[in-house]
Amino acid sequence: MGLLKIAHVPPAAVETSATVLEAVQVMAEEGVGAVAVVENGQLRGIFTERDVMLRVVLRERRPRETRVGDVMTSPAHTTPRDTPAEDALSFMLEHHIRHLPIVDGEGKLLATLSIRNLLEHMVEDLQRELHSLDQYLLNDGPGG
Amino acid sequence: MGLLKIAHVPPAAVETSATVLEAVQVMAEEGVGAVAVVENGQLRGIFTERDVMLRVVLRERRPRETRVGDVMTSPAHTTPRDTPAEDALSFMLEHHIRHLPIVDGEGKLLATLSIRNLLEHMVEDLQRELHSLDQYLLNDGPGG
Repeated sequence: MGLLKIAHVPPAAVETSATVLEAVQVMAEEGVGAVAVVENGQLRGIFTERDVMLRVVLRERRPRETRVGDVMTSPAHTTPRDTPAEDALSFMLEHHIRHLPIVDGEGKLLATLSIRNLLEHMVEDLQRELHSLDQYLLNDGPGG
Repeated sequence: MGLLKIAHVPPAAVETSATVLEAVQVMAEEGVGAVAVVENGQLRGIFTERDVMLRVVLRERRPRETRVGDVMTSPAHTTPRDTPAEDALSFMLEHHIRHLPIVDGEGKLLATLSIRNLLEHMVEDLQRELHSLDQYLLNDGPGG
């Protein structure tokens, strides 16, 4: 299954010229911990709760007067849409990131995958497998 | 295995009277996304990156002049030290939280468990199991 079925589509995104306050408003409305930062649909970086904390609050920058383009994480790690979910999770754990923009071959933003999306997907997978196992044991199992 | 072997011990913590800026400095120094908020060692709440974003930046409060006690999440969900790791993970996913303070019977803060701590622990467990399986197949397996 492609990552686009697991990820947040359409992705929360702001332009590089948006202020930190505007970006945080988008994150609050969408209930997400990161926004992709774009210019003409091309991914330029990612701006996360961690950036809010470390690059804005810790540095005592003003959210109304600071441009996201100046405090985003750039370049962002990205992944193509056909990456296996397990590989995406390993990558995120290894790089200590919780959000991974999915881009096409031209760097156009398609979606943003969160570690939460992945965990929920995996829990659903496990539940489906357990259910199948239950059915097997009930109906077709050894001695059944 | 008890949660204290998996969790961040000693936990990052600040007093309720600390400012948001001080709390963020502690989080940055410790490389964590949340601090426990205490009074005389008793847990009073938790203050997270999400709180920084939604209760400070979004509300345009001033980090130097805002007390953590006024913007923390309180009461915090907590767990005893003998909770199975899988149950702690399910609980965190279900409640959409990434940090879970571990307290003793009197509400004294012992540690803070993060979802990252849990995932890393589980990956290590899986790797150990795979390694055992490899050894079994190499040395003692069927036909070996």
